[in-house]
Amino acid sequence: MLLEHLPALAKTKIVLASASPRRHELLQLLGLKPEVIPSKFEENLSKDLFSKAAEYAVATAKGKALDVTQLLATQGKAVDLIIGADTIVEHDSEILEKPANADDAARMLGKLSGNKHLVHTGMVLVVPSSNPGVEGPLMSSASVTTAVQFDELSNDTISAYIASGHPFGKAGSYGIQGPAATFVKHIDGDFFNVMGFPLNAFANEVSDLIAAGHLKLMS
Amino acid sequence: MLLEHLPALAKTKIVLASASPRRHELLQLLGLKPEVIPSKFEENLSKDLFSKAAEYAVATAKGKALDVTQLLATQGKAVDLIIGADTIVEHDSEILEKPANADDAARMLGKLSGNKHLVHTGMVLVVPSSNPGVEGPLMSSASVTTAVQFDELSNDTISAYIASGHPFGKAGSYGIQGPAATFVKHIDGDFFNVMGFPLNAFANEVSDLIAAGHLKLMS
Repeated sequence: MLLEHLPALAKTKIVLASASPRRHELLQLLGLKPEVIPSKFEENLSKDLFSKAAEYAVATAKGKALDVTQLLATQGKAVDLIIGADTIVEHDSEILEKPANADDAARMLGKLSGNKHLVHTGMVLVVPSSNPGVEGPLMSSASVTTAVQFDELSNDTISAYIASGHPFGKAGSYGIQGPAATFVKHIDGDFFNVMGFPLNAFANEVSDLIAAGHLKLMS
Repeated sequence: MLLEHLPALAKTKIVLASASPRRHELLQLLGLKPEVIPSKFEENLSKDLFSKAAEYAVATAKGKALDVTQLLATQGKAVDLIIGADTIVEHDSEILEKPANADDAARMLGKLSGNKHLVHTGMVLVVPSSNPGVEGPLMSSASVTTAVQFDELSNDTISAYIASGHPFGKAGSYGIQGPAATFVKHIDGDFFNVMGFPLNAFANEVSDLIAAGHLKLMS
């Protein structure tokens, strides 16, 4: 597992290609100190291109990670690991992203009330310069899905939550790590995935990169 | 639901009869400002008295809440709501509490590695003075259970985790809100319950107390 490598990993140069404060917090929870460089990748891939919502999230995560990888190469800046991630909510085969406005948030929360939805995070790791034998950057990608069962939300609850401002900037119009924690009856899967970053999958992917000698740690 | 009542609830006098910093954080996540008064209730009920582990957790939570209720009554201090909670880990019908030392933590983490365990939290709410018609304090209690599937942990991982100091003071020798987040493949139930306090059940219980007129909020 990754835990025994965390002190050494904390000394490597890690870039988080995402503006999400939740993802930054989760990496800090592990003692890592990533530099945040949000990508300029426009998150507007056509959803029709993907038969599964999780694949759409992986493609967006890939776009973010590669955009920042290219930017760093242009700047001649050497880093050890670049992390891209994208989280979406899927309800009844519809992808719910960040709400455009209060009405949009009310529409989404009304759909989620009393129902189960899926949260998919696409995670992409890029090692810009791996083994001497390997040409170009090495990339691994994965997606993690968690099922979330919401309690019934009254109109008063939805209105109060929207008035609090919390829904904005969040996929599906809620953040599980705030007052909406009270909405969630049950989750089935990785909780941290719902916050925006699947820590167990990340730990396993990075462990594999270390074991294979692709990601080198300073001792 | 509770969310629309949170601003008024934040103005009531709430006492948390628990020294757990995680429980305090979770209540603060809802915007509440509880006063922390740890109980002096000795957590040494005989486990043989209870056929189910969850009942043992509820009995300990009740002991904590009533101890603090009595203390406040003795001091003549009026409060609106007293919260008691106790969290235990159950693996293979054995209750795992806080580890006594490093060997004990290693024993517990070895059992949890690669396996599923249950986390039970007993939660007890006391309204010291409820309706004029009701005699004495009003108490509600509930228990919430979450299943947690651990990844395989190597001996190196377990040793590094114990050396970090994180297992101590935590039921089952781990805290899901720290580096051990990477150990958890899957949970089935309320995540916050694993942190030590079931926020959805709390929201529903407090909503019921408000709706029944037992807990009065200042407008």
